Amino acid sequence: MIKAAILGYGTVGSGVYEVIKKNKDIITGRLGDALQVKYVLDLRPFEGDPVQEVLVHDVDIIMNDPEVAIVCETMGGEHPAYEFTRRALECGKSVCTSNKELVEKHGPELIQIAKEHKCSYLFEASVGGGIPIIRPLRTSLAQEEVLSITGILNGTTNYILTKMETEGLAFESVLARAQEKGYAEKNPDADILGFDACRKIAILTSLAYGKKVDFEDISTEGITAITDVDFAYAKKMGATIKLFAKSVKKGDKYYALVAPFIVKPENPLYAVKGVFNAILVNCNMGGETMYYGKGAGKLATASAVVADVLDCARHIGKHLDIRWEDEKLAISPIDGAVRKFFVRVSSTDEAQIQDVFGAVEMFAGVADGECGFVTEEMTEAEYRDKAAKFGSVLSMIRVD
Amino acid sequence: MIKAAILGYGTVGSGVYEVIKKNKDIITGRLGDALQVKYVLDLRPFEGDPVQEVLVHDVDIIMNDPEVAIVCETMGGEHPAYEFTRRALECGKSVCTSNKELVEKHGPELIQIAKEHKCSYLFEASVGGGIPIIRPLRTSLAQEEVLSITGILNGTTNYILTKMETEGLAFESVLARAQEKGYAEKNPDADILGFDACRKIAILTSLAYGKKVDFEDISTEGITAITDVDFAYAKKMGATIKLFAKSVKKGDKYYALVAPFIVKPENPLYAVKGVFNAILVNCNMGGETMYYGKGAGKLATASAVVADVLDCARHIGKHLDIRWEDEKLAISPIDGAVRKFFVRVSSTDEAQIQDVFGAVEMFAGVADGECGFVTEEMTEAEYRDKAAKFGSVLSMIRVD
Repeated sequence: MIKAAILGYGTVGSGVYEVIKKNKDIITGRLGDALQVKYVLDLRPFEGDPVQEVLVHDVDIIMNDPEVAIVCETMGGEHPAYEFTRRALECGKSVCTSNKELVEKHGPELIQIAKEHKCSYLFEASVGGGIPIIRPLRTSLAQEEVLSITGILNGTTNYILTKMETEGLAFESVLARAQEKGYAEKNPDADILGFDACRKIAILTSLAYGKKVDFEDISTEGITAITDVDFAYAKKMGATIKLFAKSVKKGDKYYALVAPFIVKPENPLYAVKGVFNAILVNCNMGGETMYYGKGAGKLATASAVVADVLDCARHIGKHLDIRWEDEKLAISPIDGAVRKFFVRVSSTDEAQIQDVFGAVEMFAGVADGECGFVTEEMTEAEYRDKAAKFGSVLSMIRVD
Repeated sequence: MIKAAILGYGTVGSGVYEVIKKNKDIITGRLGDALQVKYVLDLRPFEGDPVQEVLVHDVDIIMNDPEVAIVCETMGGEHPAYEFTRRALECGKSVCTSNKELVEKHGPELIQIAKEHKCSYLFEASVGGGIPIIRPLRTSLAQEEVLSITGILNGTTNYILTKMETEGLAFESVLARAQEKGYAEKNPDADILGFDACRKIAILTSLAYGKKVDFEDISTEGITAITDVDFAYAKKMGATIKLFAKSVKKGDKYYALVAPFIVKPENPLYAVKGVFNAILVNCNMGGETMYYGKGAGKLATASAVVADVLDCARHIGKHLDIRWEDEKLAISPIDGAVRKFFVRVSSTDEAQIQDVFGAVEMFAGVADGECGFVTEEMTEAEYRDKAAKFGSVLSMIRVD
C-alpha cells in the first residue's frame, strides 16, 4: 500500500482525490499495489464532504508521518507551497505538483533537494494541463536535440482567437463572453497579455536544454492588439492567428518569444481550436512530434498530477532525474531572430511599400485606404527599422 | 559506460547507430553516463562503412559478452528475431525493438521472460514510428481508464487518401505515384488492405487493457474501395475520409475495427495529412489527448528505439513493467457497434430511402442517378440488414 497526501483541496486537489478514488482498481492493477490518500490538508472544514475522513488542518501531521511517501502540492502560489514542498522533500517524500509559478521560480533548487533525499519532484501538470509533455521530453525525447518548441499553451487566449475567427467578432466582445462562461478570469491579464504562456514556455525550454530560463528574458506580447480586421487578412491568406509560445535553438543561440502568429493549415497547430492546447516539438533526429489535449480543467490537470504520483510510486527510494541546472540559459535578444512578417499599413502605395520592405506578397485592403502584405524573411531588428521608416503601420503579426 | 548491440544493420538498425553517434554528447548529458554501440550484427560485410569497426557476423559474440546490457532488435520478421530476443532476455540483456510482428505475436511471453530475468522488453518504435505513444500509455496515462483509441497508424494509406482528397485523383493513380516515390511498397497489400494498421491497434489495445488482442479478431477493411466519388460526397459534408484503426470500450464490451471513416474538422485527426500518423486516446478522467508525428522513416523509428535504450539504461537490473497478460481480451463482434453510416445508392428516391433507413441527412448525387445520405445511429447489424433490404448500395463509409 502506497500512501499519499494532498496539500490543498481546491479545484486541482479535489480532482486528484477524485481521480485516485474513481480509478482505484485500475491504478492498483497497473501499479501492482494499492494507492491510498491518507491525508488531505486544507484549512476549510468541508462539512458533509466524504473528504472529511482524511481531512487535516495541520501540515505537521503529514510531514511527521513516515507512511506518507508522496505529497501532491495543489495549493498554488509561492507561499507556503514552497516551504511545504521543501519540507516534504527533506523528509524523503516525493512531491507532485501543478504549481507552475513554483516550478518556474524554484524548479532547479527543488529538484536538487529531491535528489539529495532520494525522492522526486515532478510537475507534469504545471504545463499543458492534461497533456503529457514534460514526461515525454524527459523520457521519449531524451535521445534528441530539441531544435524548437512551439506551443499553444493558454486555453483562454486560444478560445478567444478561435471565436474571433469563426464568428468574426471583436476581441472585447469575445473576452466578455469568455468571462461569462468562466473560460477567462475576471482579471484576465495573465492570460491575454501572454504571461501564463510565457511561464510555461520558460519551463519547457529549461527542460529541453537543462538550464534555467527566466521568464523575464522572454519577449512577451499578448493578443489584445489583434482585431477582426487582422483575422480578415488572415482569412485571405487561408491562415489563422494563434498565440504561440516559442523557443528555438539556432546554432549556439537560443531565442524565445510569446506572440500572436499567422499560422497556415500545413502547421499541425493550425487545427488546435478552442480551449485545447498543443505543443509541437521539432527534434534533430525524429523530426516533429505534437502533443494535444486539454490544457486546463479540474480533472485533466488532476489526472496529470496522479500520473506523476504513479511514477513516484514505482520509484520509491529512487530519484527520477530531471536535468535542470541552476545555471542560466542565455536567451539571445529577439532582434536577431529571422522570420516573415505580416504588416498592415494605412497606405495602398505598393511601390512605396516595396521601396521600404523589399519584395512582398500583397493582399488588397479589407477596408478603404489600407492594405496588407507579407515580407520576405528578415530579422526582427530589420523589420523594426523598416517599419519606423515607413511610418504608417497599423499592425504587425509574425508569420510562422 | 553503458554498452549496447544492434541486431540487423538495415534501415532502422543503421538509423539507431546514427542517432546514438550523432547525439552522443546529448545522450551522455541526459543519462549521466556514456552509451556505446559495442557490436552491430549483420551477415553482410559493409566494406568501407565505419560500422565495420563494430560489425560482427556471429550472434554468440553478443550473447556471450556480459558487458552488453542492451540489445536493439531491428531485424524485423519473426525468425530469427524471436530466438535472438529470447536469448538476450534470458542473459539479462534488455531488448528494444521496432518489430511489430514479433511484438504482436509474442509480446506477453517476451515481457514475462524479461521480468524473470530483471531486464526489460520495450517496443515504442513498433507502433507509430517516432511518435511517443507506448510509453505515454504505460506512464502518463497509467491512472486512466482508456475509453477509446483512434489511430491513423499507416502513413502509406494516409498519404494516398490525402492525395485523393487534395488532387481529386482515383485510388489507382495515387497508389502508382506513391509506389514511384517509395511511399508505398511494390506489394502494397499490407498497407492498403489495413493489415499493418490492424497489427498496431492490436498492440495498443492490448496495452490499454492489459490483455492479449489477436489481430485476427479485428474486423479489417482497407482503402481499396474508396473512390474519388466518395471524396466528392465527403467534401459536400465538409469532411474528409481517413483510415482509422479504432478500439472502444463500451460498458464491459470491447470493439475493434480498421476501416475508412468520414471525419469532420472537429476531430483533431482530421488535420493529420500525408505520411504523418497520430493517435487520439480518450480517457475517463483527462479526456482526449493526441500524439502526432512521423509514423515511419529511418530516423524517426530509430529515434524511438534509442528512447527505449535510454529508458533501459536508466533501469539496469530492473524490469520496466508492462501489463500485458497472455489471457485473451474478448473482442465483441462488430455487429453490436453503434454509429452513423454514410451510404451511396444508385437511386434518388428519397421516400424509398427513408422507408428503409429511417431519418437520414441527404446529399444530392455527385453523378446522375445516385445520391448519398448519412443515417442516424444504428448497429452494424441493423445497417447490414437495411442495406440488404434496400439493395442498390454503391458504397458505405462509417461516420466518426
